[in-house]
Parts: sequence; structure tokens; C-alpha cells
Amino acid sequence: MPTPSGEQPQRLGVGSGELPRWEEGADLSIVGRAHPRVEGDAKVTGGAQYASDVRLPGQLYARVLRSPYAHARLTGLDTGRAAALPGVHAVLSSANAPEIAWYEDSLLFDRTLRFVGDEVAAVAAESEEIADDALRLIVDAYEPLPFVLDLDTALAPDAPKLRPSGNLNGEPTVYERGDLAAGLRDADVIVEETYVTQAALHNCLEPHGCTAAWDGDRLTLWSSTQSVFDVRQRVAEALGLPEHHVRVIKQHMGGGFGSKQIAWKQDVIAALLAKESGRPVQLMLDREAENLAVGNRNPTRQRVRLGAKRDGTLTAIAVDAAQQIGAHPVGGEGADVPAIYQNLYRCPNVRTEQRLVFTNTGPAVAFRAPGHVEAAFALEQAMDQLARALDLDPLELRRRNYADQDQAEGKPYTLPEALGRCYDLAADAFGWAGYQKPPAAGPKRRGVGLAAHDWAGGGGSPPGYAWVKWNADGSVDVVTGTQDIGTGARTGLTQVAAEELGLPMDRVALHLGDTANGPYAPVSSGSATQSTIGPAIRAAAADAKRQLFEAASEFLEAPPEAMTIRDGKIHVAGEPEDRATPVGDVTAQIAPTMIQGHGERGPNPEDKSVRTVGAQIVEVEVDTETGEVSVCRVVAAHDCGRIINPTLVDSQVIGGVTQGIGFALFEDRVVDAGTGVVLNANLEDYHVPTAADVPPIRNVHLNLPDREANPTGAKGIGEPPLIPTAPAIANAVYDAIGVRIRELPLSRRRVLDALATREAPR
Amino acid sequence: MPTPSGEQPQRLGVGSGELPRWEEGADLSIVGRAHPRVEGDAKVTGGAQYASDVRLPGQLYARVLRSPYAHARLTGLDTGRAAALPGVHAVLSSANAPEIAWYEDSLLFDRTLRFVGDEVAAVAAESEEIADDALRLIVDAYEPLPFVLDLDTALAPDAPKLRPSGNLNGEPTVYERGDLAAGLRDADVIVEETYVTQAALHNCLEPHGCTAAWDGDRLTLWSSTQSVFDVRQRVAEALGLPEHHVRVIKQHMGGGFGSKQIAWKQDVIAALLAKESGRPVQLMLDREAENLAVGNRNPTRQRVRLGAKRDGTLTAIAVDAAQQIGAHPVGGEGADVPAIYQNLYRCPNVRTEQRLVFTNTGPAVAFRAPGHVEAAFALEQAMDQLARALDLDPLELRRRNYADQDQAEGKPYTLPEALGRCYDLAADAFGWAGYQKPPAAGPKRRGVGLAAHDWAGGGGSPPGYAWVKWNADGSVDVVTGTQDIGTGARTGLTQVAAEELGLPMDRVALHLGDTANGPYAPVSSGSATQSTIGPAIRAAAADAKRQLFEAASEFLEAPPEAMTIRDGKIHVAGEPEDRATPVGDVTAQIAPTMIQGHGERGPNPEDKSVRTVGAQIVEVEVDTETGEVSVCRVVAAHDCGRIINPTLVDSQVIGGVTQGIGFALFEDRVVDAGTGVVLNANLEDYHVPTAADVPPIRNVHLNLPDREANPTGAKGIGEPPLIPTAPAIANAVYDAIGVRIRELPLSRRRVLDALATREAPR
Repeated sequence: MPTPSGEQPQRLGVGSGELPRWEEGADLSIVGRAHPRVEGDAKVTGGAQYASDVRLPGQLYARVLRSPYAHARLTGLDTGRAAALPGVHAVLSSANAPEIAWYEDSLLFDRTLRFVGDEVAAVAAESEEIADDALRLIVDAYEPLPFVLDLDTALAPDAPKLRPSGNLNGEPTVYERGDLAAGLRDADVIVEETYVTQAALHNCLEPHGCTAAWDGDRLTLWSSTQSVFDVRQRVAEALGLPEHHVRVIKQHMGGGFGSKQIAWKQDVIAALLAKESGRPVQLMLDREAENLAVGNRNPTRQRVRLGAKRDGTLTAIAVDAAQQIGAHPVGGEGADVPAIYQNLYRCPNVRTEQRLVFTNTGPAVAFRAPGHVEAAFALEQAMDQLARALDLDPLELRRRNYADQDQAEGKPYTLPEALGRCYDLAADAFGWAGYQKPPAAGPKRRGVGLAAHDWAGGGGSPPGYAWVKWNADGSVDVVTGTQDIGTGARTGLTQVAAEELGLPMDRVALHLGDTANGPYAPVSSGSATQSTIGPAIRAAAADAKRQLFEAASEFLEAPPEAMTIRDGKIHVAGEPEDRATPVGDVTAQIAPTMIQGHGERGPNPEDKSVRTVGAQIVEVEVDTETGEVSVCRVVAAHDCGRIINPTLVDSQVIGGVTQGIGFALFEDRVVDAGTGVVLNANLEDYHVPTAADVPPIRNVHLNLPDREANPTGAKGIGEPPLIPTAPAIANAVYDAIGVRIRELPLSRRRVLDALATREAPR
Repeated sequence: MPTPSGEQPQRLGVGSGELPRWEEGADLSIVGRAHPRVEGDAKVTGGAQYASDVRLPGQLYARVLRSPYAHARLTGLDTGRAAALPGVHAVLSSANAPEIAWYEDSLLFDRTLRFVGDEVAAVAAESEEIADDALRLIVDAYEPLPFVLDLDTALAPDAPKLRPSGNLNGEPTVYERGDLAAGLRDADVIVEETYVTQAALHNCLEPHGCTAAWDGDRLTLWSSTQSVFDVRQRVAEALGLPEHHVRVIKQHMGGGFGSKQIAWKQDVIAALLAKESGRPVQLMLDREAENLAVGNRNPTRQRVRLGAKRDGTLTAIAVDAAQQIGAHPVGGEGADVPAIYQNLYRCPNVRTEQRLVFTNTGPAVAFRAPGHVEAAFALEQAMDQLARALDLDPLELRRRNYADQDQAEGKPYTLPEALGRCYDLAADAFGWAGYQKPPAAGPKRRGVGLAAHDWAGGGGSPPGYAWVKWNADGSVDVVTGTQDIGTGARTGLTQVAAEELGLPMDRVALHLGDTANGPYAPVSSGSATQSTIGPAIRAAAADAKRQLFEAASEFLEAPPEAMTIRDGKIHVAGEPEDRATPVGDVTAQIAPTMIQGHGERGPNPEDKSVRTVGAQIVEVEVDTETGEVSVCRVVAAHDCGRIINPTLVDSQVIGGVTQGIGFALFEDRVVDAGTGVVLNANLEDYHVPTAADVPPIRNVHLNLPDREANPTGAKGIGEPPLIPTAPAIANAVYDAIGVRIRELPLSRRRVLDALATREAPR
């Protein structure tokens, strides 16, 4: 706003771009330390409130009736007996629900049902049991329609169509640089193979769900979501409310892995049931609904071509990727499979083509490093095959080819040396160079494999904001609108604030996950929370510190610029240590006025590209009699810039590798070909890794502050550790038994089949 | 913080000092209009959550055992049977509670009890009824001590002492300007009288109380308080917690009137009971406890001397005030009786002396315009008496003497003409000049009376802050840490935001009353909320608008300075009206980044003094047979600067006058002289005015924007309307029956006694 007086406006905040970097080797006392989770006590004692823990006076519980058919038209629905059941307060279906547009061409309760699990009706009752009983009283009739369940069938010319335009979601996306044909012509060696990845299910410990409560025309929604602001926007739009009449709250979360980055139907259904019944309504999905209706990793088929000169120099990279996105375009279903082909290696001639294919299965949605996980399985096996064809060490082939600058835009990376150093660190820690296979023990064969990754994770767009309040007793409240989706963001972000403020951790409280009160923050996805919100918090803390020093100047009779804070005490340059003044002595004198600091995340550098990279090496043992693959050990080395908290980083790496082991060896949604029913939508038949499946995982710390990326120097590490695990395992299996398995998971059956294939021709 | 690069820091907020004033006659479309309360629907439909509406899973209900003696030592306490009662989860007393310092020389559960109602023990149980039963099972024994119940007894030399130092709370406070003795010598006429005011009880519709819930070592407290931040600070201190581990929330409130401006014992007792039981605990005071233990208006005795020249010019004002503050110095008990003697009139020679006196009665605390109400009853009757002694119209005497500049500091008022105009407006509307008494109707006599007031209400210290978030759909969330104590602050502050933003009211949501998320705001007292928080909100809104215009500049291809917003649309200067762009069209394009505006209340002017003033005129009818005084009509004229919402201002005036009628005629805490028991600690025996007691009240609007006070031009109106009512009534009673009653309330007995006194000597 132009100031009428023309005077210099008062200063009320700091953008992170103004901050000096934390220098390498600087005397950081909190950042970089393994502080336990600030919410740890609350979690282990049961005090932390998860979505299903919300209890409001008069609260009802909701259940959803789902389509038993893979493709059908709803021809009859009688909810009368359900509504009349004592304890039932509201029933919603296409018969009485408002016509709310959902997905691109469907309704909240649509009469055309496109997968087993599509929403048909919902009931709110005084208990989950009564709601379940009521669902059984609903009389529903359907006209079954022809359906398709997999990529091949869906792409066949005479396939049943999910939509009038066919089964493709839009036109194929093509990326080209250089001249692929020329690159292939120039190649001395060409690898051409097709890889298949499966539908994996997120299986967050906490299922999706929410509780909705109205106060007049204002709605509060406690939702298990990675993005309180996006849920607010979508729910407001669906219900025709202005956004400021919707408040979305999420405090603790048992994982999202991408499946909670959007608003799902239950957020709106719970709100409508609450409106209808005049009572708060909780709608938690049970494990079956969770595994049918709210996302999965898209199955892919990737035809890969690589070309290289005799010395290993890559001349061509190409992929034709078809991805099965299920029945609906939910937002985030089009995982970016091409990215890693475009970015991981230095190569002048690249072509990627991506097709998104509808099928009558549950909708796909982002799943931890979406696209990259699927793509790495193919590309990194192809690289391994290429290395062997060239008679090169797979590690050496990668060292000769990894990208140290942005391949698409030609800009330098902020840390061009990062991936090379990850290779070195991982190889050294693993003992790659001198690795000797142990002698075969009966039917068991050992092997080692390697794979790398590339990811974004630099954050900053959309930006984030933070507010810092200095309290009278010298403690601090930090307010942000971000979420802690279970990664430990609360702890890592508190460390950033405590470090900048010079306070012990227990003097800083971080508030998050509430659209009404926090400033805007984007979805917690893309491993971008620390790199987006951290700098904003540091900026707000710096602003609050500046104001404190100005206020302290009078009491301490020293200029603000001579002051620093360490361990909660203000030190004045040149004065003895023991004359330091506790912060609380100053804040008490300016209380209850208090200091409000404001900060925002500044932009990323314009002339450089911020990436995260990493490499993993695994050793496996394959039982050639049973087909069982056991992972013996994993060494990981990932660039995430400055490590704010090594424990949190190790946790992400261990979690990612564990999920990668499951993806590589066990996890696979099984759909009955005759009906479209998911046969293992539960944790008994769908196998996620248990403690017994997890080998020693060593995470070697690169810990190279990415100073040009942002003023904390930290980047994300949530998603990347899952990317290289499956291809590293597959490469190790090849190393062990000499057969390459190009379809996931590497089940016993596939291993035995592959061995049989190998042994037959030889 | 010094920026290392030396570059100009990015701008992240606005201080209200930068804002241009809303000019008189400017095209304001929302400010100045009678918008209904934004929370009105929620309140009338029962949706609004008051303190007693909080329900948490497993919540217990607490009751407090109180001293039956006015002064005693607790000699025995057995809570064993109470604790063993099924349904009881925690019992606290001096036997097991931590020794938490309370008041200046006492404990949370002290063994010396100083009034009937002092806290002895507390019980938390599964219902209020079980808790009540448990209280009856506690065996308590006391050693009674001598006690004092009133000012005269307490000040007698041989009085029983509440404290070793005696019954005075500190030394008398003396204020002097000029030479009082000289002023009295110069006077042609002197009035010297003594006035007595009573203990009035606040009787907020909603009693005090709170609900406490722990999450690990973090406490959330839903408390009926005028100051979430002050409660947070006090509770944290008492429990040895850092402030950021305590969150205090208050959404809706049924009145505080000053009695809720501090943290009371129940806030800490509920927290301790919750800790002990491991369950949330609600501790609501019942009406009796409310009227015993959490405040009252301090009874006073004021010896007043006024001196004036024959022409009415005041030469001397003096008061010796003794104020009965009850058993404990709770904070805010020392109502500022001297202020109005020092400030209301232009007078060179002034002396005030104030003594605060302990008695064995419930503690006094601020009560709507504390001190001023008591003082005005005395001073404004003395002025009336002086006018009659000088044979001057009481209005004329005031016109000749009212202060138009700060008497203590000599600074001009920002609105020196305000009180003169209030006199004119009230006199005109009432018909003061031509008033003719109606002929006596049987025993009934009519009379008219006048009184004025002076008050602060300019706010700004401590300062306030606001944050404004522009949402993707063009709606706005405003976040503040202030409270709406029932005055309509939510509505008035929303109007300020909507006006500055150019949005309809229903596009703006105001969030308040939560220490965790809002920025700091001071206690809602001193009628300062609108004048402190309003400018901060306007500043934050201006900052958000500036950012919107900058963002819109690109889409609208116009410079930001050419833009204005009216009724939710952005208008570009020089372009036709019908080409205006809905705000939502722009915010949708910058969503989900959103705009965060920051604002703070700038300082008050240094060279001028900000006051609020006003006058009231009443007509009464006195029944000389029954002694009954009926108020026939009231005309009020008050300066509150710009009127943000005339309905809200009228509500405050009507409420204040109504409370003033109760104070003048009915309200009186009756303490049994033999025991110290309050005989009317309920709403049956303690008479607050009902609809039948309230005459037509006309509030004449001065509506003079106080441009130099702050950029909204608005000041407070919450407390002032209560100040002049009682003296105006007393003056009218004198006018009606020719006797002056200098002790409150003007009960039938006092009127009849006074009439008898008058009639006897004549």
C-alpha cells in the first residue's frame, strides 16, 4: 500500500532470502543433533490424537456401502429399512444427496460405478456396529457392465470402454531432447527390454478418515490429510461454502505416503451426514475400504531402450510407459515415470512417452516417490544389463554417466558433486570394490546390486510462511499451517526455530495443522516440508530475534548488533560469559506486549537447479530351491543437504528401504480376473514387510549443506530412499543367480520360473 | 536483523501508524452500519460453545469446598470418605496439593481462611452431583478467628487484623496538583460531603469456570476469561510450566465485566484435578460460589470537598477515598476512584487520597468502569449540590468547568469539543432547557438529574496484532488473539476488516480467543478492544490488500495504485464499473500460495491525550409513600469516536445504563454482621434489574471520528455508559423530593428515611 506520508514503512517481517547461511562448521548446537521426537511421549502414551481418536458430544459413526461390481449401473436402491433402524440418524445416496461433481466426470454418489469399492451409499449411526447393520439393510440392484482390469486388456482395440472417449486419460505425453534415432545409431551396444511393475497399496498405519462437525453454516473437519488447506478448498467448493467457513484440523498422523495429499469423498460425505443428522459424524475407513478406494501405486509397463558407446558413454535413453490409473482421475494419479529417464543420466538423446490408462480398478494416487520408484526398477536394471554387456563394473558405468547438471534446462546443480559422493560413500561402506561372493551354501546363492535415484525435494513452491511469538517467560510459540504426516516434521522444524533463536528445544512449541489459525502452507508432499517450511521458520525466528535484541538494547545498554543468544541467554560481544542475561529476564520486562515475528520462504535460486540424489547397494541371498529372496544388508547414501536431525533422516531411510523391500519382494494387489474383486484388501493376505524381513540397513551420511538451495541448507529425504531399493535388489538377484526378472514383485514363483527358463536352454 | 547483503529487506507487514485515516464522509460501506452479530445465529440456536458446553471424552466435573467462616484456621481435614465414594477420581486440599503461591501471601489451598467462600478442598467426579455428595463427606474442622466485615470496623485502631501489617493494603496513594488549601481559601462556596457506595456483584450471565485437559506435559484450558494470554501466563507460572506448554481457548462468553480479567484459582485447581485423575476436568462455579469468591465492586467511603467562585469556576477538588477490597489482593482490586476527580473538570487545585482496606469478605476486582462508577456517584452529586448552592443550572455549571485538555499532563485532547457536544446532544434530546415538572400525582414526584463521565478507552497499550489470510476463493481469514467477551467485538472487528478489504461481511471470518494460534492480544478490558485490535486488523488488511493488488497487476494489466476493491470486486481507475474483476478470480490464480497480511497497532499520538467522555440525563418518579424510585427515561450521549456499528454501541449503552439503574436502586451484597455469611449470594435475593425496571433509553450518537487517536477513529464504549447513571438518578431524586441521599443503593428504606429526616426539621 502506498503510504500517504511517503515515510519508510515500519518493518514487520523477514523473507528467508535475506538470511545469512548457516556456515559449514558453524557452531550449531541444535540443528544436526539427534533430538528425540517432541511428540514422542504423547505418541507412546496414547495421548496423541489421531483421526479416529476424535470424540465430540453426540458424535455418530459412519460407514459406506460400496459397489460389489467392477462396472455397473445402479438400477435400484431402497434405504428405507436402513433409515428406520434404531440408532441410525442419516442415510445418503444418489437418491437424496446433492449432485456434487467429483473427479472429472462423476458425482459424489454416482449411479455409474466403475470399480469394486466405488461409493453407493453412506449411513451415520450411533455406533459403527449399528451403521454396519444398516448397510446390510440397504437393498441395492445393479446392471453389470463389461469391464477391464489391466493395461493390456484396456489398451486392446475392442476393449470395453470406461468412458466414451476410450480408456486413455488424455493424449500421450511425449518429451524429446536431441535425436533418439541418431543416438541409437551411434550406440555400440543397445539394451531393449520391457519391465512391469505392480499395484502396491499404501497401507498407512492410520487409515483415511475424518470427523465433521457443524456450527451453523460453519464446518470443522478433523481429517487425516497431508494438506489441511487443500482439503479445505475442495470441501468448501463441493459444499458451496466460502473457504473461511471451513476449518480443517490435523494434529498427528499415521502416515500418508501420498494417498492423503488430496481430499477424498469421505471428507464431504461426513460433512453431509453431519448436516443431515445435526450431529458430529466420524467416518473412518476400515482396512478393506482403505485398500479398495483411496489409492494405490499405478501398475506400469515400460519399454526401455538404452544405447551406449563401447566406453560406456550413453548415447540414447528412451521409454514408452503405460500406467494403469484405475477408474477415476483423482488428482495425482499420473505418476511421473518419465522424470528419472530424463534426469538421472547425462545423455544428449532422450525420448519419453507416457500414457495413462483407465481400468475398472481402484483409483491410483501418488505413492512415495511416485513414478520414480516404478521407473527406477526398469532404468536401473537396464543400466545393470548394459554394464554387463559392456563388461563394465555397474558402478563405474554410473560414475561415467551420472548427471551433474540439469539435463532439461542446462542449469548447473547447486551440488553437482552430490551423486558422485553418494556412490563413493555407499561403495566404501559396503565394500563394493573388494566384494567377494561367499561360496554357495547348498541351494543358496549370494549377489550384490546397485541402483541410484534422482528427485526434487528442494521445496519452496508453493511457498510457506511462519509466525513466531516470544512469550513473557522467554518461551516461544511457532505457528505454521503445515502438517506432520508422521515423518517427524514437528521435531525437525522445532530444531530450526530453536537453533535460530538460541533456545533449548523445550522452550519452543510448534503449532501446525489448522487452517483457521496457521498461515498458509502447501501440501506435505514431494519431500518438501523441511525445505519449504524450515526456511520460513528460520526467517520468522530471525525477525523475532531482531525485535528481541532491539527491545533488549535498552535493558542491557548494548547495541542490538552486539547480541547473540546461546542456550537461552543473551550474550553481548566483549562481555564475560557469566554476565549473559536469560532471555526470560528481557521478555518479562516487555511482557505482556510480546514479540511477533513473521517470515516467509524466499524463492529458489534462478540460475541453478536444486535436486536430491542418492545410491543404494544391497546384498541378497537367493534360495534356488524355494525361490525365496532374502535381503542380507543394505547400504544407503543420500543427499538431503544439511542433516537437521540424523535420527529423523535415518528413520526415513530405514522406512523407505523397508517399503522398497516390500515392493520388490512381496507387495501386490491381487484382482480377481473374473469379477474385479480385490482378493487381498487386508493385512493378512497383502504382505507388507515385518521386522523379520528387514536386514541391517546402514545409512551413510553425506550431510553436505546445500547452501545455494535455501538458508537452512536442508532438503527433503522422505521419498527418495524408496526409489533405488527394488532395482538394487533385482540387480543383486541377477548377480546371484544369473537371471533377470523384469516383473515385480520378485516372488518365489517368478524366481523359480526364471531359474527354470534359464536352466532349460543352457 | 542486519542483512549481510545490505539490501533493502522485503516488506512483510504494516503498522497501523502508516494507514491513512478513513475520512469523515468517506464512502464507507460497512463500517458505520448496523450489521447484526456474526455469531448471532450460533448463539440463538445453541451452537455457540460457552465454558460449560465443553465436553471431552471421559470428562469429570469438579466442585469446591469453601470456608464457612469469615476468618479461621483449618485445624483438621479428612477427605478419605470423599475420595472413596464411587465416581470420585480426585480430591485436592492443603493436605495433598502442591504449595502454589496465590495472591500475595497465601496459597492455592491455604490453611488460613479469610472469607466465607475461601477455597478449602476440591473434588473431581463423574458428575456434579457425585462431586457435591463427596464434598459433604469431607470432615473439616476450624479454629475461628476474629474478623472485620466493613470499612469502619477495619480502620478502627483495635480492629482484628487480616495481616500482621494491619488492614491497609500498602500506603495511601496521594495525588496533588496546585494548592488545595489555597483553592479552598479562594472559593466563594464550598461543598463538603461524605458518600458511601456498596458492594455490587458482577453476576455475569455465564459464571466463571473452565475445563482442563492434559496431553503429556501440555495443558489445554477452555476458560471463561477476558484474557487468554494472561490466564496462560498465570497458570503456567503456578504449575511451573513454560508458557508455550499451556494453551488457553475462549470462544464465546456470557459477560465478564472485569471479573474475568485475571486467572482465578479454579483455572489451576481444574488443571491439578485433571493431572491427578488423568481425565479432563470441568470446574464451573455455581451462582453462589460466583457471588462469594470471584469478585465484587469495592465498597467505598468518599469524603469530597469542592470549592468554587461565585461564577461557578472550580477552585478546588479533593477526595479522601477508602475502598474495601475484601480478603485478598487479587489483582485489579484497587479500583481507580481518584481518576475522575483528577480528570473530569478543569481545576488547578486538586488533591486525592486513596486507601485500600482489607476486610474478611470476598475479594474485590475490577467491575465495569472500576472506580469511576463509585467516584462519579459522589463527585457528580457534589457538583449538583454546588450548582444549587450557586443557583446555577447544573448543566451550566458543568459547561463552565468541564476539562477540554489533559489536566495532569497539560496535553490537548484529540477531541476537546467532545464533552461539550455530548452535553448539547443530551440536553437537546432530553428537552433539558424547557423541562417542566408534571404536577404531583398523589404521592408521586418527578425530577430530573444530570451527570457526566470521563474514561480512557483509547487503547493501544499493550499493543495488538492481526494476521489476514486471503484464501483461494477470495474469502478472508483474520486471526487475532483477542477475545469477544459478549460485547460484539467479533462483529465490530470483522466490519473493520471487511471495510478495509472491500469485501462483504460474509466473506470475512474472524478467529480469536486461542493463545496457541493467534498473535498476542491484551486483556479485553478498559473498553480498549476495538481501539487496540481494530487498527491492527485494518493494518493487516491493508497489507493483504497491497499484496493482492501487486499480484493482480499482472492479470489485470494495471498498476496496483490504480486499484480499489468495492463489494468484492477489483476496480481499476478509469475503467468502466462493469469491467470490475471479482477478487476470487485473482486469488484463484495465485492459489494455493495465498496472501498473508500482517499488521500491528501503532502507538497513540505523543502530543495529545485520547479520552472518552459522555453525559446522561434521567427523569425519575419517586413514590413518597413507598419510597420507590422509578426511572422514567434516560438520554445518553457518549463519545466513542467513530461508531463502527450503531447497534453494538446502543447495546453497550443500554446495558451500561441498565446496570447503572441496578447499582443505583437495588443491587447490594448483604453480609451478615455476626458471621460474615453473604445472605444474598443468589439471583433470588440479590436484585439485578429486569426488563420491567428498564425505561426507554435513548442513545444519541455523537459519532465524531477521533482521527488523531488511531486510523479507524474508533474508541471504546463498553464501560463508560455505566458511570453517570447512578449520580444522574440521585440528582433526579433530589430534584424530585428535595433530599439528597449519599449512600447507595437508593432503596425504599433509604428514601423513606431521608424523607422523614427532611420532614422532621422543617
